[in-house]
Amino acid sequence: MIIVNTGDGKGKTTAAIGQIIRSLGQGFKVCLIQLFKGESFYGEQKILTKLDNLDFFSFSKEHPFCIKGVSLQEAAERCKPALEKLKELANEPKKYDLIVLEEFNISLRDNFINKNEFIGLVKALSEKSDIIITGRGAPQELTDIADLVTEMKEIKHPYNKGVKARKGIEF
Amino acid sequence: MIIVNTGDGKGKTTAAIGQIIRSLGQGFKVCLIQLFKGESFYGEQKILTKLDNLDFFSFSKEHPFCIKGVSLQEAAERCKPALEKLKELANEPKKYDLIVLEEFNISLRDNFINKNEFIGLVKALSEKSDIIITGRGAPQELTDIADLVTEMKEIKHPYNKGVKARKGIEF
Repeated sequence: MIIVNTGDGKGKTTAAIGQIIRSLGQGFKVCLIQLFKGESFYGEQKILTKLDNLDFFSFSKEHPFCIKGVSLQEAAERCKPALEKLKELANEPKKYDLIVLEEFNISLRDNFINKNEFIGLVKALSEKSDIIITGRGAPQELTDIADLVTEMKEIKHPYNKGVKARKGIEF
Repeated sequence: MIIVNTGDGKGKTTAAIGQIIRSLGQGFKVCLIQLFKGESFYGEQKILTKLDNLDFFSFSKEHPFCIKGVSLQEAAERCKPALEKLKELANEPKKYDLIVLEEFNISLRDNFINKNEFIGLVKALSEKSDIIITGRGAPQELTDIADLVTEMKEIKHPYNKGVKARKGIEF
């Protein structure tokens, strides 16, 4: 099954984390591949890395829009090993019940990862594993092949009142 | 901060679980109060109950719409201890950084819990802790007092193609 969590609201990443916890609780094996997230910054990383049956990979940890001094070209370059990892998983026998591709929609939006190549890999992987792809702005070609698409829609958000991101809530 | 996860799409509960993991990872103390969910059925329960700094309470485990043989009156009666728990938390000094009230929107919809009483308690609790309330159909009175409201909107769901709920995905 191909699952997409998209939209401008809160909950795309946390729902994927919840899904990982649910899956691990049922005794399944899970792979989390994360883009654009500095390690040990996000609270979830501290718990997830301690859990059995979860393999956690993190690539291109700094996104140019968030971290000054990283060029678009560098970020794209640093996404290449993520795509290589997907190819490796697609070519080897089933290893995971669930594969979570965190913020990959952003890598497609910014052309860091080739959309057609990515979609081909997701299709191939979904024959062995359930796949969750997160990030705002999921492209139509991805939602077309997905089985389950949820838009996390912002109804009300404290950012709009000038409240800053808070530890334990946004990271 | 008062956070509401509502809407008909997937991700309300899993986003709350992800938020619990994030919060625990930052070293915070969390309380999860769950309604209408039989224990040891949902994968997440098997992981969450093993984590430090999380207190987990479950009330009114069977909802009449899901489990035959439970009357609406019985379900309402079994929600009373959940409300008592909230009163207890509201009256004692701060114990938790985050309190998650799972499926409480359903208890309001079905009049198992008095809406005004609940909203008063959420307001009181939010002075000490962040509060997350989940469940479809959040009442206007609740979204009015919330700081952050996300609608999990179903764009595409395999149920509509006749696919049944799957272990590790829906439970």
